[in-house]
Amino acid sequence: MNDENLNALFDFCREIDKEKFIGRQTYLTGAARKENDAEHAWHAALMAVLLSEYSNEKIDVLKTVTMILIHDIVEIDAGDTYAYDEIGKQTQREREVKAADRIFGILPKDKCEQLRDLWEEFERNDTTEANFAHAMDNLQPMMLNDHTDGKAWREHSVVLSKILGRNKTTEQGSETLWEYAFKNLIKPNVKKGNIIDDIS
Amino acid sequence: MNDENLNALFDFCREIDKEKFIGRQTYLTGAARKENDAEHAWHAALMAVLLSEYSNEKIDVLKTVTMILIHDIVEIDAGDTYAYDEIGKQTQREREVKAADRIFGILPKDKCEQLRDLWEEFERNDTTEANFAHAMDNLQPMMLNDHTDGKAWREHSVVLSKILGRNKTTEQGSETLWEYAFKNLIKPNVKKGNIIDDIS
Repeated sequence: MNDENLNALFDFCREIDKEKFIGRQTYLTGAARKENDAEHAWHAALMAVLLSEYSNEKIDVLKTVTMILIHDIVEIDAGDTYAYDEIGKQTQREREVKAADRIFGILPKDKCEQLRDLWEEFERNDTTEANFAHAMDNLQPMMLNDHTDGKAWREHSVVLSKILGRNKTTEQGSETLWEYAFKNLIKPNVKKGNIIDDIS
Repeated sequence: MNDENLNALFDFCREIDKEKFIGRQTYLTGAARKENDAEHAWHAALMAVLLSEYSNEKIDVLKTVTMILIHDIVEIDAGDTYAYDEIGKQTQREREVKAADRIFGILPKDKCEQLRDLWEEFERNDTTEANFAHAMDNLQPMMLNDHTDGKAWREHSVVLSKILGRNKTTEQGSETLWEYAFKNLIKPNVKKGNIIDDIS
């Protein structure tokens, strides 16, 4: 048994436990508390398994699920940058790269490269797997925001144009799911005033 | 687009959000709060990806990861039964089957059968994937219990013989990981008195 390899793997597994303390803006069912990154990653990963047949193009589901499971690990150091926080976004890339160096660097060399590459692929969003992972990363909070009567949207005075801008990546992953989501999760909330209509 | 199918899929995805409210006995890093089922499933699923090469036999990693992502969904209705709660265990199967009927029943027929079968396979623990999923289900809390100086073990006055009994399934999944875990996560805690030695 190579203890050194296993020590590094378990050190990483202990380190990522901290992802459970990284808060997001999405409210859970009942709207009493917001979710954290680990809960979000679990939910979005399982949605990827269930919805993969709706991807625009054929995807490697294991690769997509792994990408989703790790996509927010950098936030252990860099913190969560809210989807519509324009100031935070200016320094996001720099903070996250530094975090990726440190956290993936805990792993044995082969696994470090594998996960780091997968995270960079997610960030570049230039493969079918990354496209679908982004679609899940967008759809999961959208579904919960609708489910909690738009509380998070209302608290942040989110405007429709921003949602449409962000969800170009949802459509890249799945036109069918984006069409469904726009009809069932977005439009009713615009009608109710939970999302500010800055377009029509 | 088949809206009926997607409605059922999204209904299920909304329903499983409740898994984030199902508490477990494992303390997270810092030992200030315990984790919930969704956090546990995320952590164990990612550990499966990272540690799969240590499986006794070759496994289908996507199948194993999916199994882990869904293995505690029944606890939304049935609640968490602590690993060493002998009274709760008497009614566990009955409560969980009823929960599986209701919750997986929300899904479209094909997906319902697929996930229900996968959950039953996990429960029977008679395939290499189920063996490895159980190993992760045991190792993840063991790692965190060690990491929080055995707080959960001490609170429940857990004895070594029970841990060894439960972890027969860890060894079934991976002899190497069980050997590593016994040496690095269990033995030091027996020595410190965090786990009661009822054997030697």
